[in-house]
Amino acid sequence: MKCSANYVPLTPISFLERSAIVYKDRISLVYGDINFTWKQTHERCRRLASALCRRGISRGDVVACLAPNIPETYELHFAVPMAGAILSILNTHHDSAMMAALLARSQPKIVFVDYQFLDIANGAFKIMSEKAIPLPRLILIPDPHDSVSSVTAYDSLLAESENDDEFAVVRPDDECDPISLCYTSGTTSTPKCVVYSHRGAYLNSLSSILLTEMKSMPVYLWTVPMVHCNGWCQAWAIAAQGGTNVCLRNVTAKGIFDSVANHRVTHMGGAPTILNMISNAGASGRRPLPGRVAVMTGGAPPHPRVLSEMEEQGFDITHAYGLTETYGPGTICAWQPEWDALPLEARAKLRARQGVQHLGMEEVDVKDPVTMQSVARDGKAMGEVMFRGNTVMSGYYNDAKATEEAFRGGWFRTGDWGVMYPDGYIEVKDRSIDIIVSGGENISTIEVEAVIFSHPAVFEAGVVGRPDEDLGETPCAFLKLKEGHAATEEEIMTYCRERLPHYKVPRTVVFEDLPKTSTGKTQKYALRAKAKAIKDLV
Amino acid sequence: MKCSANYVPLTPISFLERSAIVYKDRISLVYGDINFTWKQTHERCRRLASALCRRGISRGDVVACLAPNIPETYELHFAVPMAGAILSILNTHHDSAMMAALLARSQPKIVFVDYQFLDIANGAFKIMSEKAIPLPRLILIPDPHDSVSSVTAYDSLLAESENDDEFAVVRPDDECDPISLCYTSGTTSTPKCVVYSHRGAYLNSLSSILLTEMKSMPVYLWTVPMVHCNGWCQAWAIAAQGGTNVCLRNVTAKGIFDSVANHRVTHMGGAPTILNMISNAGASGRRPLPGRVAVMTGGAPPHPRVLSEMEEQGFDITHAYGLTETYGPGTICAWQPEWDALPLEARAKLRARQGVQHLGMEEVDVKDPVTMQSVARDGKAMGEVMFRGNTVMSGYYNDAKATEEAFRGGWFRTGDWGVMYPDGYIEVKDRSIDIIVSGGENISTIEVEAVIFSHPAVFEAGVVGRPDEDLGETPCAFLKLKEGHAATEEEIMTYCRERLPHYKVPRTVVFEDLPKTSTGKTQKYALRAKAKAIKDLV
Repeated sequence: MKCSANYVPLTPISFLERSAIVYKDRISLVYGDINFTWKQTHERCRRLASALCRRGISRGDVVACLAPNIPETYELHFAVPMAGAILSILNTHHDSAMMAALLARSQPKIVFVDYQFLDIANGAFKIMSEKAIPLPRLILIPDPHDSVSSVTAYDSLLAESENDDEFAVVRPDDECDPISLCYTSGTTSTPKCVVYSHRGAYLNSLSSILLTEMKSMPVYLWTVPMVHCNGWCQAWAIAAQGGTNVCLRNVTAKGIFDSVANHRVTHMGGAPTILNMISNAGASGRRPLPGRVAVMTGGAPPHPRVLSEMEEQGFDITHAYGLTETYGPGTICAWQPEWDALPLEARAKLRARQGVQHLGMEEVDVKDPVTMQSVARDGKAMGEVMFRGNTVMSGYYNDAKATEEAFRGGWFRTGDWGVMYPDGYIEVKDRSIDIIVSGGENISTIEVEAVIFSHPAVFEAGVVGRPDEDLGETPCAFLKLKEGHAATEEEIMTYCRERLPHYKVPRTVVFEDLPKTSTGKTQKYALRAKAKAIKDLV
Repeated sequence: MKCSANYVPLTPISFLERSAIVYKDRISLVYGDINFTWKQTHERCRRLASALCRRGISRGDVVACLAPNIPETYELHFAVPMAGAILSILNTHHDSAMMAALLARSQPKIVFVDYQFLDIANGAFKIMSEKAIPLPRLILIPDPHDSVSSVTAYDSLLAESENDDEFAVVRPDDECDPISLCYTSGTTSTPKCVVYSHRGAYLNSLSSILLTEMKSMPVYLWTVPMVHCNGWCQAWAIAAQGGTNVCLRNVTAKGIFDSVANHRVTHMGGAPTILNMISNAGASGRRPLPGRVAVMTGGAPPHPRVLSEMEEQGFDITHAYGLTETYGPGTICAWQPEWDALPLEARAKLRARQGVQHLGMEEVDVKDPVTMQSVARDGKAMGEVMFRGNTVMSGYYNDAKATEEAFRGGWFRTGDWGVMYPDGYIEVKDRSIDIIVSGGENISTIEVEAVIFSHPAVFEAGVVGRPDEDLGETPCAFLKLKEGHAATEEEIMTYCRERLPHYKVPRTVVFEDLPKTSTGKTQKYALRAKAKAIKDLV
């Protein structure tokens, strides 16, 4: 018998409601001088949800937010679902043209805009007006130092519902109803709009607590942008554990060290750029840590040099892997205690693997994308990395065709190319689109990049295939050197020759800044175009 | 779009399948000289499931197990669901007549019977035969020292499926399908048969990991009988975390201390009888602990004396509360860090509260059972404790009427009487049926028992109402003294008078052993009958 006594649709809203009781007077959020308790955060989210409903927001509407990791962005993770609506966080790195395209796609009824990004929003609105696309209502998150604002501001919304005790939080009818939309970073194409469900968000939150061994009342530093998979679902997970969210408008090495020292941060996350920021801070930029800090990283394997530097400083790195379509991390390089005894290099090699599925993900496999057979579990045979489980997206928003394509064969096809080791751990070798096929051999660009990156003068590197009449393609490296360092093309090639089989060594080396996506990933398709252009010149 | 890529019915089977990869070579179970790894446990459960299917077990059939906390009982927690069937663990403390009644109720197709309990099973079968009730097939779990057995034995089942690579694990069609049947302890009536679902078991397992702050790879000592709510769902939770299950056929103080010392136990649980066993072990029975041990207790608030003794020894006690109908613990006395600074007595008072709902339980409330209004949150107003959430039972097996009654008003009615404090923590005062109404005043028998128990000579105490012509009822205490201690009726009454309001002091004091249910709880209904008989004599 299924009834209200024994069946409640899973939703992260339950986390906040429970924390308002269990962790009532504990600090929920810190941002500069601002402090809230869980009771206050719950109350503010309720009020905001009430104000949204008064403005006509109803079940299934989209509400967008263009803002960095500030308290308002955090609160909208609960307030929007509590109004029955779908949250869409927008990337502050986009320009007005891209913003207009994304807004046209998801058609939010309301968009919250941080004052720093008002120009981008207005620019997007202008473009949309010209194309006669209906505009969302704009609600400003104002500069706290600016006392007057002509647009409805965030705080006035909160104020108007102050005594609204009657408001009933809207809960999902079905736990598979959407809770948020997340755009992919657009490494290989324009951003795709991914739908998350209440069920997936709930289950992924619990998994992410368990995979980081997070106890109750953690202190979480927001170095992962909330726009990335809702901060890898930590926005909800921290509420579940009654933790403290430490927010930063801009992430800097100083901001990180100060936050860790002042608030006794226990957990944080970040792409390799964040790790580099910490390890390159230099003695003057560092502060001693009050305790060890668990850091989850993803996007690329952490480099051994960075790993050892950070471990020494007191950061414990866990390597995770996933995509926007898997709510952020879908696998984790689960650490086996006996590995602690291995030398640094062996440890780094093991930690570079993407690992095994977390508790909420049913299965990860490496398969032949045509036959759907698993490849040999020998760490050599390559195939496409595929996922299956409750923490895989519902689909692409209003795009049944792309959704069907992604789920062809009953698995989510990542487009990532990898291997599986005999122990069941996977290692991603490349995006399938990035793999270089040279003289019939597959070359992982990630492998070549790792070798180049290990050169002491190199700050970052991107490798792509360059068309070649004889071999089909040959490796072409783009790289940026560290400030005050120098290296020649020949030096880089010699360095690679000593460490890689001949066919994997770049035939072309170009020194220049790498083009990046809004989430900080290298735009390989832009590099490929450049590599092709080089050929045309030769 | 819901498909196999993004929707998998929640089931604890997933925990075992993942642990067979992630924790493959780690010890899953220890029992005397026996050791298994997670890979082996997974393989054994698969084989056993295959053997069950060959014997005609199919979706929805019941498979029972009459055995203590031995490896076989643990394995059946996975093997039976992996055959699509429903597990029913039977209490080894029942006699043949009760066993026959329970078997007739749940009608298992197969019953696994430990050699020590074969006589009880045969006795039950005889009774059932006489009543023409169909008998289940019996599979013996033999004495390892007895080489010949005429009944199909557990190990031969395992052996016959050794090379059965084709067997496909049966998974629930719907996550709300039943996974197990658990009988209530029968404190107030004959045992009721409670249905657990795959979904509830999955969610409660995750919650129980989080509420005990259990990291991955814990070492769990089985002092909670697996027959109690499938060991408070820890049977599944330990698989989720890749922990080590330390099994004991009989729980003794020596067994506990030896296990903790030899296997570095990190977690265990138990009713107050287990805590008493530890705290009464005496210096000779103790061994130094290799690390602190987290102990979850439930059934009754831990006594301050026991608490302080155990804390000193290295056991950290968490007080939880629940019923068979809530998969074991439904609330936990979540500890607030600032309480650490309070004196022992204040801490004990706080820890005696049953607390707040765990993460998997949606709501707990104290309500007027007629109006369904919440009582005042003042720690004084009494009402019925009620639950609502995904970790409330599906219902009573094949008993729609009792199920409807239990869920009347959309909440699960516990039949427990309690209060809610301003901070949202509940405290259970009594079973509603046990409350004594004397001269119009409600008397909590638990409160009176706690006072009597604090007397240094008292080993245990049970208080019930005794009919009284003037007052309706008066408190009547039954108690057992510690060996080598003495006390008179008058001494006990004086002791109570100094600590309780006059109307709560027992008017009658009886020295005798307390009648117990199969789960070790005092049979209050038996005491009430005795108390009534006293009146008839007077």
